[in-house]
Amino acid sequence: MTLARIGVTGLAVMGANLARNLARHGHVVAVHNRSGSRTRALIEEHGHEGAFVACETPEEFVAALERPRRVLVMVKAGAPTDAVIERFAPLLEPGDMLVDGGNAHFLDTRRREAALRERGVHFVGCGVSGGEEGALLGPSIMPGGSAESYAALGPLLEDIAAKVDGVPCCTHIGPDGAGHFVKMVHNGIEYADMQLIAEAYDLLRQGLGMSPAELAGVFAEWNRGELSSYLIEITAEVLRQVDAATGRPFVDVVADRAEQKGTGRWTVQIALDLGVPVSGIAEAVFARSVSGDAGLREAARGLPGPPAPVAGPAGEGFVEDVRRALYASKIVAYAQGFDQIRAGSAEYGWAVDPGALATIWRGGCIIRAVFLDRIREAYAAAEQPATLLVAPYFAEALALAQRSWRRVVAAAAELGVPAPGFSSALAYYDALRAERLPAALIQGQRDFFGAHTYRRVDREGVFHTLWSGDRTEVEG
Amino acid sequence: MTLARIGVTGLAVMGANLARNLARHGHVVAVHNRSGSRTRALIEEHGHEGAFVACETPEEFVAALERPRRVLVMVKAGAPTDAVIERFAPLLEPGDMLVDGGNAHFLDTRRREAALRERGVHFVGCGVSGGEEGALLGPSIMPGGSAESYAALGPLLEDIAAKVDGVPCCTHIGPDGAGHFVKMVHNGIEYADMQLIAEAYDLLRQGLGMSPAELAGVFAEWNRGELSSYLIEITAEVLRQVDAATGRPFVDVVADRAEQKGTGRWTVQIALDLGVPVSGIAEAVFARSVSGDAGLREAARGLPGPPAPVAGPAGEGFVEDVRRALYASKIVAYAQGFDQIRAGSAEYGWAVDPGALATIWRGGCIIRAVFLDRIREAYAAAEQPATLLVAPYFAEALALAQRSWRRVVAAAAELGVPAPGFSSALAYYDALRAERLPAALIQGQRDFFGAHTYRRVDREGVFHTLWSGDRTEVEG
Repeated sequence: MTLARIGVTGLAVMGANLARNLARHGHVVAVHNRSGSRTRALIEEHGHEGAFVACETPEEFVAALERPRRVLVMVKAGAPTDAVIERFAPLLEPGDMLVDGGNAHFLDTRRREAALRERGVHFVGCGVSGGEEGALLGPSIMPGGSAESYAALGPLLEDIAAKVDGVPCCTHIGPDGAGHFVKMVHNGIEYADMQLIAEAYDLLRQGLGMSPAELAGVFAEWNRGELSSYLIEITAEVLRQVDAATGRPFVDVVADRAEQKGTGRWTVQIALDLGVPVSGIAEAVFARSVSGDAGLREAARGLPGPPAPVAGPAGEGFVEDVRRALYASKIVAYAQGFDQIRAGSAEYGWAVDPGALATIWRGGCIIRAVFLDRIREAYAAAEQPATLLVAPYFAEALALAQRSWRRVVAAAAELGVPAPGFSSALAYYDALRAERLPAALIQGQRDFFGAHTYRRVDREGVFHTLWSGDRTEVEG
Repeated sequence: MTLARIGVTGLAVMGANLARNLARHGHVVAVHNRSGSRTRALIEEHGHEGAFVACETPEEFVAALERPRRVLVMVKAGAPTDAVIERFAPLLEPGDMLVDGGNAHFLDTRRREAALRERGVHFVGCGVSGGEEGALLGPSIMPGGSAESYAALGPLLEDIAAKVDGVPCCTHIGPDGAGHFVKMVHNGIEYADMQLIAEAYDLLRQGLGMSPAELAGVFAEWNRGELSSYLIEITAEVLRQVDAATGRPFVDVVADRAEQKGTGRWTVQIALDLGVPVSGIAEAVFARSVSGDAGLREAARGLPGPPAPVAGPAGEGFVEDVRRALYASKIVAYAQGFDQIRAGSAEYGWAVDPGALATIWRGGCIIRAVFLDRIREAYAAAEQPATLLVAPYFAEALALAQRSWRRVVAAAAELGVPAPGFSSALAYYDALRAERLPAALIQGQRDFFGAHTYRRVDREGVFHTLWSGDRTEVEG
């Protein structure tokens, strides 16, 4: 009997599709699921696609694998993942690899990795992006864990990953939780990108009265330029869709309450711990929360909008303004995300290579885009940019976009169309480039009410003004 | 020997001032500090202000207290607080009270409360706001913990709290961590308020070229109207201050890097867990982070601002526009904060009374303002508003302000002055009142790439479109 090169346990859609992807690439794949029906269904429907070894029990599954064993776990994050680890770890031997391909919190991954390392087992927290279709046809794969484990796992994962210009969308991200960390930030960026696209749509629809069908054309057109990306492409598809039941545009029959599963929220929470301002992701998470609070929205529906009919923005020019504003805001959102990755990498000592990351996000994943190639280039420069905003290509794009960007943010305010993503991106840009910020006033207030002290622009040291005394300054 | 009514351990400025405040109100106060020098300094400098019992050791300190004992702990949050609890708890008896007056995270308070409850000791997480001066002259006090402990502690705390219209700024907030939770949100709101004031200052200074001295006059004038508050008052004071060393405006010699100690960040992190969009607080926290990142700012300094000289906003009208925009944005920030308190109260079963909270924030604390009286009134209505934005007084204020608000956000974008607080507040307002949000498009995208399903506006159920198939809709 041929031993399997890799095993997949957890055969919901993502797990089943990854197993099929491996099998289609000629690897013998052991498959297992807690309830055997899923295993049987996979073999029945897709058994002809490659060499599967269907296993009923964890023991049988582990015995079916060549050594060192590669076990890919595709179950829900949290308790189910811990349960699977507990069930399989005792069956593994030093040198074996347990790969978590779910959306675990990277701090859980760090904990699990440390625990399994003590038993000599490599635990690999592995981000997988691309949805169901990506899992089957080529996802973007972000494995963390030890370099040793990547040597044994990498070739298989690179095999099934998406390819761009022949380069696989898979690389070793860094030790322990690095893979799940960057996958988390990937999802945060995805939230921001989707929110920005939604704002562009809303502004054009409300500002110019364009129909979803017309807007589908606009997005399809944009997809041929610098905005070219999977998310823009599917936006055009969604907007083009007509609801069969009613004949109305699909987007008009969908309830306007966006849901979320947690990775966007985690990204912002961790960014706050790291002190990285990811306002684009935060506003996207908040916008989904607002949309989902039906009670609050119902209560607020009567609040007045802009007075009087505003002079609407002019057609063609405004479409191009919105396109540029979207591009500029997108640059900011990605710059913030990459800043968070740099900060996380520094905090946990991962040495994540941002250029390599941009490279593997060019294909397979949800945020795949031409754009990522520009980011890859920015980080390939002799001197790494302090922020993507100042990398020559992006600085130029921002300079080119900024007239439009400002017009669009102003128009959104005047029209009463919510554009928290566009406006917070512009505010971030203006804050970062400011010669002086009013933060000096905030430091003055803090010193006034809490004696928190301040620094001066003209000499070293920490100072306090005796605000409730004679208001002289003392050095502290 | 007279037993002390209450004891204070930890005699840094906040602890010492609270001890003095208690003594000045005629209470015998036992005082203790890990290093005895602080205790001796307090007695030496302020012993004449009342009846202090100086204690060298925890044992002596506990023995000096009447029963049930009231021990107020005023040490740094985190490990120092745990160390003090460990040292004192074994000396206490069932029915005694250990009060943590520091800025603990409410989840730590919940943990500590549960642990001490098992030993019969009441642990009271108690928010105290007002800074050093407030601690001495009358702070706003937010005690959590058991109702039983409040019966024994409340009269003393109400005694030393600030008073507004004769009403003490102290009330029992709710069980376990409720006090520290609301103090945390208080600080978050404070961050947002300070950021909005800073933006108003920046817009007027850069937009109209007004000097700090002129702006001091503007804020002093604003302090006589609906914006009347401690923060506006001290803003005028800070702006009026001239640096003795250079003769320059004080605000111009202070380094423009705002610092933060963590409660603002916590507020946002917890809000994300609760699903409450506190964009005003988040933007304030992020703005401080941006200001503090000297390296990034240095790198970004060359990025271009608005092209061409923009037609500046007109004088008097713009000052009033900014005042109204500030007021409207402030309403949003407070509404979001009170939403978070409601959500936290529901999550943890605290039954926090928002009207009572607004009442005790009218005086003593950093965000004290006439405004809080309006919030108190809003929650005193027969029917509690779903959000403060729809309470009649605030809805009217927003309606009145909104022309100005939109003009100011638009002007900030055109001028290149960062106004993340103003613009995110307006975006939140516009999102909340929107008939339709583009969240429907986001749901469509999510269904497209991840089969996350969506709901429809016209019938119940959960649906999925077969995007990679024939694009018909299936019910899931």
